Amino acid sequence: MKTQYYTAASLDGFLATPDDSVDWLMALGDDEASTFPAFIAEVGAIAMGANTYAWILRHADEAIALTGAAWPYAQPTWVFTHRDLPVVPGADVRFVRGDVRAVHNAMCAAAGPRHRWIAGGGDLAGQFLDAGLLDELIVSVAPVTLGAGKPLLPRLVTAPPLQLQGVARVGAHFAELRYAVGRGASDSSTQPPA
Amino acid sequence: MKTQYYTAASLDGFLATPDDSVDWLMALGDDEASTFPAFIAEVGAIAMGANTYAWILRHADEAIALTGAAWPYAQPTWVFTHRDLPVVPGADVRFVRGDVRAVHNAMCAAAGPRHRWIAGGGDLAGQFLDAGLLDELIVSVAPVTLGAGKPLLPRLVTAPPLQLQGVARVGAHFAELRYAVGRGASDSSTQPPA
Repeated sequence: MKTQYYTAASLDGFLATPDDSVDWLMALGDDEASTFPAFIAEVGAIAMGANTYAWILRHADEAIALTGAAWPYAQPTWVFTHRDLPVVPGADVRFVRGDVRAVHNAMCAAAGPRHRWIAGGGDLAGQFLDAGLLDELIVSVAPVTLGAGKPLLPRLVTAPPLQLQGVARVGAHFAELRYAVGRGASDSSTQPPA
Repeated sequence: MKTQYYTAASLDGFLATPDDSVDWLMALGDDEASTFPAFIAEVGAIAMGANTYAWILRHADEAIALTGAAWPYAQPTWVFTHRDLPVVPGADVRFVRGDVRAVHNAMCAAAGPRHRWIAGGGDLAGQFLDAGLLDELIVSVAPVTLGAGKPLLPRLVTAPPLQLQGVARVGAHFAELRYAVGRGASDSSTQPPA
């Protein structure tokens, strides 16, 4: 069972534009070859930041039109937020703040034999990384550059480097890069070397 | 004959740290599987920015120790700079500034049947892109994140998106992503739609 940061990003390392738009991603269209259905089927617990959650909230009407449901996940979901946010009808959501360790423990308990998904954003994934709780990064690189925006992973991770596990083309547009987080001496900018 | 931006970058889209260090790249070691020897053999002209050139200057002693020569390229090289920089002994270098179009014409004439390489940095590659002169991006994604630094391509390129041409694992560490620059309507942030 792993804690995985699975996300799409631009070639230049952004999750979204400065104003949290992922229209550039949606414009690439549905991808029948997507690895997401197989990925989410193995996920037992989800964590996300307030911006990611708020994006789902803003697009609830579209989701209902598309899928019949405003909330796409059956798994229990922890939303890190400092603001009050409404609960999406039908969502198994709990709002939390503070240290990711306690939440990770709860996620592990809830997920059982399945994986834990850090859905974003980048700083939340970074907090799990800082705490030594992140096992894998799975990035679907979109064929665009944004030049500015919300960073994929605002951390210095070079020593040890990530461990490249897999490289695959997915459909017409995406390159999926899979990495294991290196264990041992770390230079993560928010975590002093052990 | 194509004009190609071939470079290494971190997973989060940086060419170098904020202080122009690529030690994180050097630390990954020589890669026998590198595609660079085959790439450079097909290059007939090179353009680079002042920071890229200055980096080579600063590492001339190491290059001499390693290869016997301070300057690694046989091809004529155009260096875009607003400052006075010394010429590396043995280098076929000309210092230029201003519009990339005139330089591109000269590069095409010099390269003949071979490709033109934009070696970096990101903004120089962006200037060739803005002018409609860039044909391909070839990015060796290193298994690191820097969190900050010199951007791969500080431009908005989403409509049309880049066209993914190839995805390959190269050696233990690198994912090589190849893209053709889409022609047609452009939203490049420094180029108004045609």
